[in-house]
Amino acid sequence: MPARAGEPQAYAMVLAYDRGPFHGWQLQSHGPSVQGRLEEALAVLTRQFVRVHGSGRTDSGVHALAQVAHFRGPPGLDLEKLRTGLNALAGPAIAVHGVVPVPARFHARHSALGKVYRYHIFNRPYPPVFARGRCWWLRAPLAVAPMEAAAEALLGEHDFSAFRARNCGAVSPVRNVRRLSISAGELPDSTLRIEIEASGFLQHMARILCGTLVAVGRGRLAPGEIPAILASGRRDRAAATAPGQGLHLVRVDYDLEAFPELASLLRSAPPARGPAGPR
Amino acid sequence: MPARAGEPQAYAMVLAYDRGPFHGWQLQSHGPSVQGRLEEALAVLTRQFVRVHGSGRTDSGVHALAQVAHFRGPPGLDLEKLRTGLNALAGPAIAVHGVVPVPARFHARHSALGKVYRYHIFNRPYPPVFARGRCWWLRAPLAVAPMEAAAEALLGEHDFSAFRARNCGAVSPVRNVRRLSISAGELPDSTLRIEIEASGFLQHMARILCGTLVAVGRGRLAPGEIPAILASGRRDRAAATAPGQGLHLVRVDYDLEAFPELASLLRSAPPARGPAGPR
Repeated sequence: MPARAGEPQAYAMVLAYDRGPFHGWQLQSHGPSVQGRLEEALAVLTRQFVRVHGSGRTDSGVHALAQVAHFRGPPGLDLEKLRTGLNALAGPAIAVHGVVPVPARFHARHSALGKVYRYHIFNRPYPPVFARGRCWWLRAPLAVAPMEAAAEALLGEHDFSAFRARNCGAVSPVRNVRRLSISAGELPDSTLRIEIEASGFLQHMARILCGTLVAVGRGRLAPGEIPAILASGRRDRAAATAPGQGLHLVRVDYDLEAFPELASLLRSAPPARGPAGPR
Repeated sequence: MPARAGEPQAYAMVLAYDRGPFHGWQLQSHGPSVQGRLEEALAVLTRQFVRVHGSGRTDSGVHALAQVAHFRGPPGLDLEKLRTGLNALAGPAIAVHGVVPVPARFHARHSALGKVYRYHIFNRPYPPVFARGRCWWLRAPLAVAPMEAAAEALLGEHDFSAFRARNCGAVSPVRNVRRLSISAGELPDSTLRIEIEASGFLQHMARILCGTLVAVGRGRLAPGEIPAILASGRRDRAAATAPGQGLHLVRVDYDLEAFPELASLLRSAPPARGPAGPR
């Protein structure tokens, strides 16, 4: 879908980033942001100001393995040069997997059908060496079976008011949690992983869900209490928000029949679960 | 096996470390070493000088997921306090998984029956974000099937003179490579992994094997050339040494019937391969 000369072209990009050096995704007055770093790089490469839109505003301080963003820029950009240039200018804590032209109706956030987050827990009496800044270190052994029972109770469509930040601005608190799995991590990164796939996430929802599952694993909350917490809609009934450093945005899903251009780009995303994908 | 009061007791420890801040394992005059950091911490904790012996002298600049070391110290040390103290004093790039008393005849290097190394390759046109300093970034796609054929040819007992550093001091160049597997990595850490299990390793042997497999994957060497390279015994026939930052010591094997004390400690080592061990 080549745009006519001079008319702006919509592009989508997939990128990974380490939250470490940034104050979140969104432009900030008080420090560097992923969005700001990308916009600075695109200004250099396209010689114009380009606004970058990410796939979400919630849990902006997470790590991303395959974040999706869109922007409008000059038509006919050399995509390979653009990728190389973005990686040279925006790196090393940001890696742009690729950029593709998309139809103008594509919107990284509005077109998203769902997301997958992965939370890393390092559950050992000694500290993590390689996962520093990328996991929640919990020394005392967590009881996994009760966590699995609690996860089961959180599945499906619910009003997640008890699991969102008090200042969350979403109009509807209803979300559909399609999958909530607890599985062995892979050393040395993690020993336990929580993966959450949902139609969308309220502010801090992924981290509050994880914090609540950990409270269950610590025996501070019983799995049987989950339905009442959901029904209460009260934030103070769920457990404390899990630290942001353990949270990774793993995948953003789109209708690939409507946006086939994205298919090859999204293949760079890790599989939602399991012992690694194709080579 | 409690030692008599005053008589020194042998201890073994398992530890992980990130090579980043260190000039290798061994004591160095020009910078910090893992051994030095542990000896400093043990001096504080035991109030005496304690020499620490690691499991090997080869490829000392690797990352370790489960290195094994031994030392002699005062009898009756509180093992839990020792672990906590070592992690507080030697961290954050070193994590001591645990310390156990062992029979005096145990020697981290001489008692070792074999080792497993894992090499991480990030084979994508964009840079790694999370695996910086822990992988070899190769942009052009590697051909995996020829690498597997080459690995097959390296298996078994051979004179590995072509695969050791020119100044390697080992008396015999014969080693038994029991397993040499190439498999999908796990994103975001790696996209391809080489795992090598052998009776022992000559100096730089793991890295020269990996460098040679990568040369095959790049089409610069044919798998059929491997037997002649082995037979030649000439270092200049094998490929360049792979960068140290991709190499991880994954496991050291001992006779657990002779040293049952080690069994629980070594369970902290990752499984040699596969989708993570028990929770």
